[in-house]
Amino acid sequence: MRPFDLPLGYKYATHYAGIRKQEKDDLALIVSGVPAAAAAVFTTNRVQAAPVRLARSNMRASKGVCGAILVNAGNANCATKTGDKVAANTTRALAKLLKLQPNQVLPASTGVIGVELDENLILSKLPELVERLNDTGLPDVARAILTTDLQPKGASREVTLRRGIVRLAGVTKGSGMIHPRLATTLAFVMTDAVIPQTLLRRMLVRASELSYNRISVDGDTSTNDTLIVLANGASGVRPDPKEMSVFEESLTETLQSLARQIVRDGEGARKLIAVEVHGALSDAAAAAIARSISNSPLVKTAIAGSDPNWGRILSAAGNAAVNFDPTQVDITLQDVKVCRNGLAAPFDEADMKVRLDDTDVSIVFRIAGKGKGSATFWTCDLTEDYIHINANYRT
Amino acid sequence: MRPFDLPLGYKYATHYAGIRKQEKDDLALIVSGVPAAAAAVFTTNRVQAAPVRLARSNMRASKGVCGAILVNAGNANCATKTGDKVAANTTRALAKLLKLQPNQVLPASTGVIGVELDENLILSKLPELVERLNDTGLPDVARAILTTDLQPKGASREVTLRRGIVRLAGVTKGSGMIHPRLATTLAFVMTDAVIPQTLLRRMLVRASELSYNRISVDGDTSTNDTLIVLANGASGVRPDPKEMSVFEESLTETLQSLARQIVRDGEGARKLIAVEVHGALSDAAAAAIARSISNSPLVKTAIAGSDPNWGRILSAAGNAAVNFDPTQVDITLQDVKVCRNGLAAPFDEADMKVRLDDTDVSIVFRIAGKGKGSATFWTCDLTEDYIHINANYRT
Repeated sequence: MRPFDLPLGYKYATHYAGIRKQEKDDLALIVSGVPAAAAAVFTTNRVQAAPVRLARSNMRASKGVCGAILVNAGNANCATKTGDKVAANTTRALAKLLKLQPNQVLPASTGVIGVELDENLILSKLPELVERLNDTGLPDVARAILTTDLQPKGASREVTLRRGIVRLAGVTKGSGMIHPRLATTLAFVMTDAVIPQTLLRRMLVRASELSYNRISVDGDTSTNDTLIVLANGASGVRPDPKEMSVFEESLTETLQSLARQIVRDGEGARKLIAVEVHGALSDAAAAAIARSISNSPLVKTAIAGSDPNWGRILSAAGNAAVNFDPTQVDITLQDVKVCRNGLAAPFDEADMKVRLDDTDVSIVFRIAGKGKGSATFWTCDLTEDYIHINANYRT
Repeated sequence: MRPFDLPLGYKYATHYAGIRKQEKDDLALIVSGVPAAAAAVFTTNRVQAAPVRLARSNMRASKGVCGAILVNAGNANCATKTGDKVAANTTRALAKLLKLQPNQVLPASTGVIGVELDENLILSKLPELVERLNDTGLPDVARAILTTDLQPKGASREVTLRRGIVRLAGVTKGSGMIHPRLATTLAFVMTDAVIPQTLLRRMLVRASELSYNRISVDGDTSTNDTLIVLANGASGVRPDPKEMSVFEESLTETLQSLARQIVRDGEGARKLIAVEVHGALSDAAAAAIARSISNSPLVKTAIAGSDPNWGRILSAAGNAAVNFDPTQVDITLQDVKVCRNGLAAPFDEADMKVRLDDTDVSIVFRIAGKGKGSATFWTCDLTEDYIHINANYRT
């Protein structure tokens, strides 16, 4: 992220509050100069962390207006006695420092579950955190919110509209594969475009469906997943009604870029796998097939071993609870057809092995016929390193 | 399986037909002296192998009467041009040799997908296979149907009823964890009790729900899964109407024993994990929670690492799309309470590590309140060996 890509009117800061053992910033703050239109989606897990519950209720109470996002890493503040109090007290103290309504601060946490979070660790650092606010610190935020991720993750876009340029920039964390007690996905995207809150919300729902809902983690949804988009209007540029789709496309691309970075950084992952499905009876049917292929450990281990095992792909598709005729299916791996009309197609095994050793793998599942439904999912290969990291986490 | 446990009136034979490369019997035959009442459940995968399609239609055509089951290992006869013809020709030839109606022979196959199966390999061995039929060869069948399983799997029961003793015996194959192109679960259970076909069918549906549908493989369902129960009445003993539940209980236990053996033999698995859920609003809700915990790689890797990571269990339960109050949840690991009312309960870490090193692990998830729903699932730990075996299958 180059500074000149950053949206206008936002400030960032990070600090080390001692929540994680390793001395590495674990507190991050994003502030909008003027309260921004905000939209958010949260985990669907029945078990919801205290910061998720408070962020939800703040979004309702403020009618989607947000001035600041306060994030901590190292402790999920979930399944704890004092969780609600900690989330409320820390956001309220921050609101006071920033002269915001308490419900205009949204909290997010990631880290260990079931361990009490000492609010004083955060409260004592808030004044310094606010003093540190600056225009360019978004990359620091990207680093501070990491847990066991290897790489900080960010994406930005500029969109040229009739009335001027607007900018989007986002950061995210998450593992693409599960982490012990640390499975959380967080994402924060800022834009300086002028976007009405209700419209922003609809765009976020659609864009997250095409990005974060299309990466295969492992079927698990964390107790803390949080995705927030802020639009503070600081550019003064409001997209024309006709240009709203252009803006939405940029938002979608930004979220897709962030989501793909999560998959690529999956624990033990060496390959990013794109799964495209075409020719299903609807986009939803295509998405169901793509999800089933992407979630299959059978497929993910095959790709890890550079094994062109199309039988696993066909079988995984058959488990999607979607109607299709297997004899109409073609499967293409790395641009080589390996299955035609549901039967083996001849290919050069040695050449295919080399192709599958690439760090980017493409699977195209095409059903012949009248169906127009299509969908793309992203997943990663499943390697021994993944198990190693997860099984040995506490030791 | 001791011979005297075997149900009366069945004969068994195996042979090597050269379907698999390794010279190890790959053809198995189960014959009932008189055509038996038969009930069967098959894969729900949209992609169905030829033998599954033929077995289904034979079951319909014969109205649930079966005289013989013909099984081959080494080739799934799925996604092949000649699949239907091979299944039809081999079962028809066997029927002729055994003087059965063609639709009284049920085929089952397991092995590689997408490779043509040469019917002559089977046809040329059928006469010898029939000659080899004998009373005691069920353990040979258990071995012949294995693919990458390490252990042959069988279970038997005697049930003493008012009018005499009836016997059940079954064999199964499957990996509990996925196998490359070899994910199939097969099970064949024979009894000499007199059970009407319609009743047998209802019992099988319920019993398989409580056994094979309660083991966690990996969400994948093979194209070839087949579970057949035969009741030939050779004992002459028909359970009283009141005793039918006693028989059904034995059938359920037999299937549960077979299913648990599959899990224990899972690739790379070192531990059998029993997941009990109590206090849900219904048995179905309890099953959904138990399934979600059992399917979670997060939980399975924790157990592999002897990590008492109850946060993962709570979070996996929260993903079951079932309503429960997390603050009412107690979690017990190896008889030690590690979570009480949704919060950490103190326990001795060193002692727990030793307990979790056992090859049998118990997880009990109990929701306080009025709910009476309960369910038990079985799964295995997820280890590096599993990945190693699957990623390197073809190389």
